[in-house]
Order: sequence, then C-alpha cells, then structure tokens
Amino acid sequence: MKIIAYADGNATALGVVTSPTHFVAVAEIAPELPSSLIAILESEHGLARLRDAAAGAVGQRALDSVRLKPFLERPNAMWALALNFKSHLAETGLQTNGDYPHLFLRTPASYVGAGEAVVAPPEAVARAFDYEGELGVVIGKPGRYIPEQRALEHVAGYTCVNEGSVREYQVHNRQFGLGKNFEASGSYGPWLMTADEFGDPATHTVQTRLNGVVRQRARLDDMLCGVARVISYLSQGYNLRPGDLIAMGTPGALKPQPDDVAGRDLSRQYGLFKVPGLVHMRAGDVVEVEIDGLGILRNPVVGDEAHPGAQR
Amino acid sequence: MKIIAYADGNATALGVVTSPTHFVAVAEIAPELPSSLIAILESEHGLARLRDAAAGAVGQRALDSVRLKPFLERPNAMWALALNFKSHLAETGLQTNGDYPHLFLRTPASYVGAGEAVVAPPEAVARAFDYEGELGVVIGKPGRYIPEQRALEHVAGYTCVNEGSVREYQVHNRQFGLGKNFEASGSYGPWLMTADEFGDPATHTVQTRLNGVVRQRARLDDMLCGVARVISYLSQGYNLRPGDLIAMGTPGALKPQPDDVAGRDLSRQYGLFKVPGLVHMRAGDVVEVEIDGLGILRNPVVGDEAHPGAQR
Repeated sequence: MKIIAYADGNATALGVVTSPTHFVAVAEIAPELPSSLIAILESEHGLARLRDAAAGAVGQRALDSVRLKPFLERPNAMWALALNFKSHLAETGLQTNGDYPHLFLRTPASYVGAGEAVVAPPEAVARAFDYEGELGVVIGKPGRYIPEQRALEHVAGYTCVNEGSVREYQVHNRQFGLGKNFEASGSYGPWLMTADEFGDPATHTVQTRLNGVVRQRARLDDMLCGVARVISYLSQGYNLRPGDLIAMGTPGALKPQPDDVAGRDLSRQYGLFKVPGLVHMRAGDVVEVEIDGLGILRNPVVGDEAHPGAQR
Repeated sequence: MKIIAYADGNATALGVVTSPTHFVAVAEIAPELPSSLIAILESEHGLARLRDAAAGAVGQRALDSVRLKPFLERPNAMWALALNFKSHLAETGLQTNGDYPHLFLRTPASYVGAGEAVVAPPEAVARAFDYEGELGVVIGKPGRYIPEQRALEHVAGYTCVNEGSVREYQVHNRQFGLGKNFEASGSYGPWLMTADEFGDPATHTVQTRLNGVVRQRARLDDMLCGVARVISYLSQGYNLRPGDLIAMGTPGALKPQPDDVAGRDLSRQYGLFKVPGLVHMRAGDVVEVEIDGLGILRNPVVGDEAHPGAQR
C-alpha cells in the first residue's frame, strides 16, 4: 500500500494510491480513520484497517491533479545518519565509528513533500547546497529495548529522502546544527510504501539525479549500519514512536563521464570536500531521488525569496 | 509574567503565577485564549492579551497542589548549544569555533517539566549521566534574517534548562545523536518568565545543585555566543517559530571542597573526561537548576523501569 498526503484546500488530506496514475481519498473509503497519518499509525490496527478499506478500491482522482505534502506532520523525531556508506566516507576522508550508527536530528520544517520546492540559500549566504539521496524509514509501532531480530516489526514503511545539506554551515563546528536544518532544504516522499509491499530494504537500490544526470547510485546493502541495527540502537535510549523518520545516510558521488563538464569542474565546488561528480543544487534545477520498487521523489529547486538581497 | 503548564486531569492547562505560592488558571481569566502556550504565542498579541487579563488577578490555587508539565508541547525545534562557556571548554579539552554558535537538536521527548522525574539509564546501558544547567530561551515572534540588534525582540521569555546528557552515547561518534536525546533525560521550567520581567540575560547567574551541593555556577555574560548572536545566526537559514527553545550551553564544574568526597573521587566517573567536582546523576538524587531572578527547576532522578534488567 502506498499512502500520500495532499493539499485539500487549506488542510492536508490522505490518499491511497490505486494505480500508477490514480488514488482514492482516505476520507472516502475510511471516514472513521483520523486525517493524519501519524494518528492512523497510533490507532489500534490503524494501518490494517486502512488496508482493508482500500482493498479493491479504484481511485478516480489523478495523482498529477493534486499537490503532494509531507505525510508526517510533526513527529517527535526525524533522525538521520551521517557517513553510513563506505563510498561517502571515502570521498570526504572523514571517519566514523562503525560500531554505532552516527546519528543527528533534523526538524520537520527542514523537509518539504514531493513536487514542492526545495529552497536553495541565497549565494551570499551559502553555495555548497547538496542533495543526499537516502532511504527513509517510518516507524509504525512504538518500542524500547528492541532486539535487532525484531526491529523490522516496528517499521510502518519506507520512503525516498533528499537529505539536502548546506555544507558551509555544516562545518562551522563539530555538530552539524544549522547546516542540516535550513528551511525547506530537504524533502521526502512521494509516499509511504508499507513494509509488506517494499520487502527487504537491502535488496533495493537508491539513485539521485540532478537535471536528469545520475549523480549517486548504491545498493542499500552497502550501509555500515542497516535498518534493524539503527532501530535497535536508538531504542536503547529512546522510545521509538509512530511517525518517527530515520534517513539512512547517503552514498558517494558517481565518477563523472568524460563529457560531463559540470561533474568534472572542481572549481565550481564550494564545500570543504571537492569531489568529482558532485554538482551543487541551484535555483532552476530539478532533483530526483529514486528507490527501485518504491518510486521517485522529484523536487524543483528555487531561490530563497525571503532573503533581503534575493531577487523579487 | 510567569506562565506555567500543569496537569489538569488527562489534559495540560496553563496558569499565570500571581505570588510565590499561588497561580490563576488561564482558562479562568482569559477563556478566549488557546489552551496551549505555543498557540498563544502564535496568536495576534496573544502574550499581551494574557498579561492584560492577568493584571491584578489574585490566584487561589497553590503551585504545590499541581504537577507542572513542559509548557512547550511539540515545537518545531529544540536547539541546544555545545561548548558555549570557556570553563566547560577547558574541562573537556575540546575545541569549538567561537565565530559560530555550536548547535545541535533535542527532541521534545527528551525533556520533562519541573518536578517530574528525570530518568537515569540503567547502569548496564550507561553510567555517565550528567546534569547541564543552562538558560533556556523561548522564541515568541517568528523571523528570518534577523540582525543581532533586533534579535531580542523575538524572545518571548526565559526558563531554566537541565540539558541532561548520557556521555557514553554522546561520544559514540562525532554527532551527539542519541547521547543528548535519551527519553526524559532533561527538563525545563518551572515556568516561562517573560522577557520584560527577566531583563537582560547577561546580568543573571545560573547554578546547578545535585543533592543540595552546588556543582556549577556561572554568570550568563560568560558565554562565547550570547542570546542575540545565536538567534541572528539561526535565522540565516531557519525561520524561527513561536515556541522554539534554545538551551544556551552549560558552564564547567566548580572545584570540589576539601571535604567533598563524591566531588573529588574521579574513580567514580565514567565519561570520557574526568573532571574534579563532577558527580553523575543517579536514581534517588535531586537535581536543581537555578537562575537568579527567574526560579528553580527541581527534578527527582529515577531509574529506568522500562529496561528488561531494571528492578521492578
């Protein structure tokens, strides 16, 4: 089952995708369920009741007729992993302790939904604004002290994440802080695919494209800490809650092709680590994160109109 | 004005403190105002309307007759600063870039209210569970690209914070991650004191007591980055929102007195940095953070009953 959130007037409504092009509104097939996904996950058998209600439904509404929204309104925690792929460790030259997941937090306001505009900082503020294509894990069942072998039972489903990062701010100090939390700098979506439909994360591949050029591609079995390990670790100190998101870390850049001028031009990189094949996001770009068997998270990149020096 | 949140049956209600011992319910003096503090801060002139309604009120309810709660239910961001006092830098031997605030995030679930139990991890999980007495800043007015000289206009008020930290987990990797986010490991309160009543933060002092012994004491003008600087910096990338909390960092440990056995016994310290005068929090302790002119945040420390190995 694939669950979307979409703008419905001034409110956000939920839908279930019924075909590659259409969906049905949750309020139509299951009016007794809450109108927020987190509240459904918190309800007794909420996801199972929605699945029953959606069985056999034929959606009449076109996906491309609505504006998708982030489907997790304000969860308690949006975790993310640093340096969880060997290829990303190698390109940065940074180190991590492979015995433990390398975790930090983002705020809900740092993410937009699929199709919504990701906001590039004004160039006067920062220029090293980078995509990070990642697998997103959404918690369905609360828990503490969860053994690894039971950890996946706590997953409601998966999504694509662009864990967009502002490198200049990320390296101001040891803690990433603001550099991982610029307003609307990342995105997730296009939907939550439930775990039964997605299957084992390790058998999938994530790729990131900027303006159609593939910039990252990795199998999800290449992570230092897998999904079960991260859930089990977090639960040693933290009560996992329905709606919590975990972004599983990003792979390194693909080597640029000989004719790839942008990917080979290190002089146009502004971060601490100059990496062949890395191209910063800029206003006017289109960025896509695709996980095979799940879907494509596509976002336009726009300039930050709030800046006093920005073009109006 | 001092605003509290307190348990009212299964709900959380707001009150205004009218004397050292009594308060009045907001629902009584201003029934038209929302029942959450963040919603009041978001309302047009919400805080001013509450102040007008509370003027001259004589509270009939005793503060010690209610259980205080965290007054910020689920803000978008709960920021905290690392290494913002020279005395704390010196005792850890760590470095920071003094040009920029050193920021990280905590989740709402990592904090409890005044009087509520702070939870120590089971000893099998971690033993270096430390208090961090800090000034907490609560944002009242939203904003972006805020110049330092106007930053304090965005502050609704101040509170005491115990930014409780689990050191073993904090040093698993470069990002603090879970070590700053154990469930109910910190607290804030006892109330929000509005900025007009608190005055200039730099003229105040913070101190932390464990079982009555003063363990930290510092003037708030000793911070590397002050309140205005931190707000201005954050606003370069982040839209500050009403109800956002910023914990301003903690000072170093006071040198132990000659007869202070616990404070002088480094063999009973389990963190990476052994510091004379530091004593970890343990079940059965009482920890207090006091900011002069604001109030005392007092919490009992209890063991983590959720652990399979914990005593029941």
